[in-house]
Amino acid sequence: MSLADTVEVRAGLLAELPALLPADRKAFVLTDRNVAPLLPPSREDEALHVVPPGERSKSFLSLEALLYAMDGAGLDRDGLLVAVGGGVVTDLGGLAASLHRRGIAWYAVPTSLVGQVDAAVGGKTALNLGGSKNTVGTTHLPARVLVDPRALASLPHRHLLAGLAEVLKTALIAGAPLYERVQALAPDDLASATPAGAEVVHGCLRTKLGLVEEDLHDRGPRRLLNLGHTFGHAFEALALEPVGPAHAAPEPEDEPALHHGEAVGLGLLCAARAAHGAAGGPLETELRGLLEGWGLPVELPAELAGDAGSGREALLERLLGHLARDKKRVGGRHVLVLPRAPGRVEVVEGVPEAVVRAGLETVLPPA
Amino acid sequence: MSLADTVEVRAGLLAELPALLPADRKAFVLTDRNVAPLLPPSREDEALHVVPPGERSKSFLSLEALLYAMDGAGLDRDGLLVAVGGGVVTDLGGLAASLHRRGIAWYAVPTSLVGQVDAAVGGKTALNLGGSKNTVGTTHLPARVLVDPRALASLPHRHLLAGLAEVLKTALIAGAPLYERVQALAPDDLASATPAGAEVVHGCLRTKLGLVEEDLHDRGPRRLLNLGHTFGHAFEALALEPVGPAHAAPEPEDEPALHHGEAVGLGLLCAARAAHGAAGGPLETELRGLLEGWGLPVELPAELAGDAGSGREALLERLLGHLARDKKRVGGRHVLVLPRAPGRVEVVEGVPEAVVRAGLETVLPPA
Repeated sequence: MSLADTVEVRAGLLAELPALLPADRKAFVLTDRNVAPLLPPSREDEALHVVPPGERSKSFLSLEALLYAMDGAGLDRDGLLVAVGGGVVTDLGGLAASLHRRGIAWYAVPTSLVGQVDAAVGGKTALNLGGSKNTVGTTHLPARVLVDPRALASLPHRHLLAGLAEVLKTALIAGAPLYERVQALAPDDLASATPAGAEVVHGCLRTKLGLVEEDLHDRGPRRLLNLGHTFGHAFEALALEPVGPAHAAPEPEDEPALHHGEAVGLGLLCAARAAHGAAGGPLETELRGLLEGWGLPVELPAELAGDAGSGREALLERLLGHLARDKKRVGGRHVLVLPRAPGRVEVVEGVPEAVVRAGLETVLPPA
Repeated sequence: MSLADTVEVRAGLLAELPALLPADRKAFVLTDRNVAPLLPPSREDEALHVVPPGERSKSFLSLEALLYAMDGAGLDRDGLLVAVGGGVVTDLGGLAASLHRRGIAWYAVPTSLVGQVDAAVGGKTALNLGGSKNTVGTTHLPARVLVDPRALASLPHRHLLAGLAEVLKTALIAGAPLYERVQALAPDDLASATPAGAEVVHGCLRTKLGLVEEDLHDRGPRRLLNLGHTFGHAFEALALEPVGPAHAAPEPEDEPALHHGEAVGLGLLCAARAAHGAAGGPLETELRGLLEGWGLPVELPAELAGDAGSGREALLERLLGHLARDKKRVGGRHVLVLPRAPGRVEVVEGVPEAVVRAGLETVLPPA
């Protein structure tokens, strides 16, 4: 079976979810508090576990509580975990599925744009370890990926925009025609599930599945999908920094300073700068225009950047510190994905520190 | 490469460990406080992480602390985890290796008899979840298994005996000639690494590797290796019961009421009874004689059985409760491995509750 056969994209699918689950297997549904109200009434034998929304649910404490709940629900080796939500829920759920009874099957039902075009596809599961994003995880492909484009209608606008950065990343890797479709896209195409919007979601899924099929364990061409993510993770790690390493309190429900997708958007600009030299190039300008046009940030928020006048160098050092812990590093050298042009993206090992630094400076407030 | 090629058995190997690690990869050594003094001086770039001995180190808290240490040591995707110790250390280390940066390579260096003939071979990694043994884990084969028979000399006598139960289990599955060699074995053959002892360790390793090679994910013939373990885990769960579900305090260093191997020994007697009906049979008598002859328990220790006169039925119910949470269960039915005779062992699905109960009663103190 090809990976494409495991994916189903259909408007209205979420409402029919109970009927899409195998009748002869116990199902355990994981979701978050924002998505729970969208779920149809469950089957009688279904268990439901609801986590707080946001990155803090990608913690050891969340994972342990979830595994206890799965154990307590009597989910055996033939049980099925169904993760319905954004990237946090599918990252956490996929990891729990890979660990429960040494691995049970799971379905990914992504309800965010990031999830539908990227996070829920390809079997990467993850937790954060203190300030380090996705340091811990497994590779455990979902048995099915069920995508309801209408789910995006209920997504907060900022989350939808954040997903657009992942869309742009995927399109940069794919090149034309997907890149051209994305250039012409408006956020409302996705919120209203227009044909143009649905076609872009499909195109991103196809691109990602192709790379995953070729290279499940991310040692070859799949690494292209890290475009924007190495820099992006450093910005996200900055956002997690104030939290201590041990079990942190649950996240307050207010919005984080930086969404994953927003961090990836900034990361794309850094990568474009690093690919083209200190002065930047036409691709960086074009990407900045697209992000700004959609309403995405193109500069690190002041909340994270701090007092740029006095602390710029210290901030750069903190970011470089986070990059030094990047899990893609090999032999202590920076590995970056650099976009030369749409459809021409390369993995480069041993990028000099000065180039990394120039990349980071692209999105820092002026000194 | 066949699995047998990943295994090296050689007296004195432990003292040469640093030279056996690849020179071009950062190594992170995990061990416990009992084994640490046996380790040779480490290479300069090696990191060392020492956990308390005993089952309590198979906890989420231990795993999280270990993953923090691996992250802090800058272990990247090409890093190597080296787990030197008994089953607890290799279970925990293998799990951490499968989770760090979504999976790095690891070496298993088992220093206990249980580890050398069973636990360290085959890639099963595990944590306990509160009172449930090995509920959480992955399947992540070690790149190498390095076995030093001389390591057994420093093993406490009770640990060596506990390993003999696993030896007996493996020999029951293999049948003659291994079973006959094991019948003739004395504990001192292992403690002194005599040719007879080393041949038995080799034979057990070969038997296990053959089953793992055929069925890595434990859906087919590998399940035979659970002989004695389904019952055994219930006895072990009893020993863990008083501990709360959340993060428990580290285990005191005193000896547990029941070692894993001792529990497996009891489990073999239960399985022999369940295989031959309520009256028991010649195999059960023979196994009881072997276990008693070596000095292993053939009855649940009073410390765990409690006041048998008044509480026998309650104890049976608690044990059946633990069996109901067995991770090998399929569709809510008991799955047991039943020994008909040496070399003739079967996986039986849907064993009636009365047979399971009769099996458990084999090792309970008389009412």
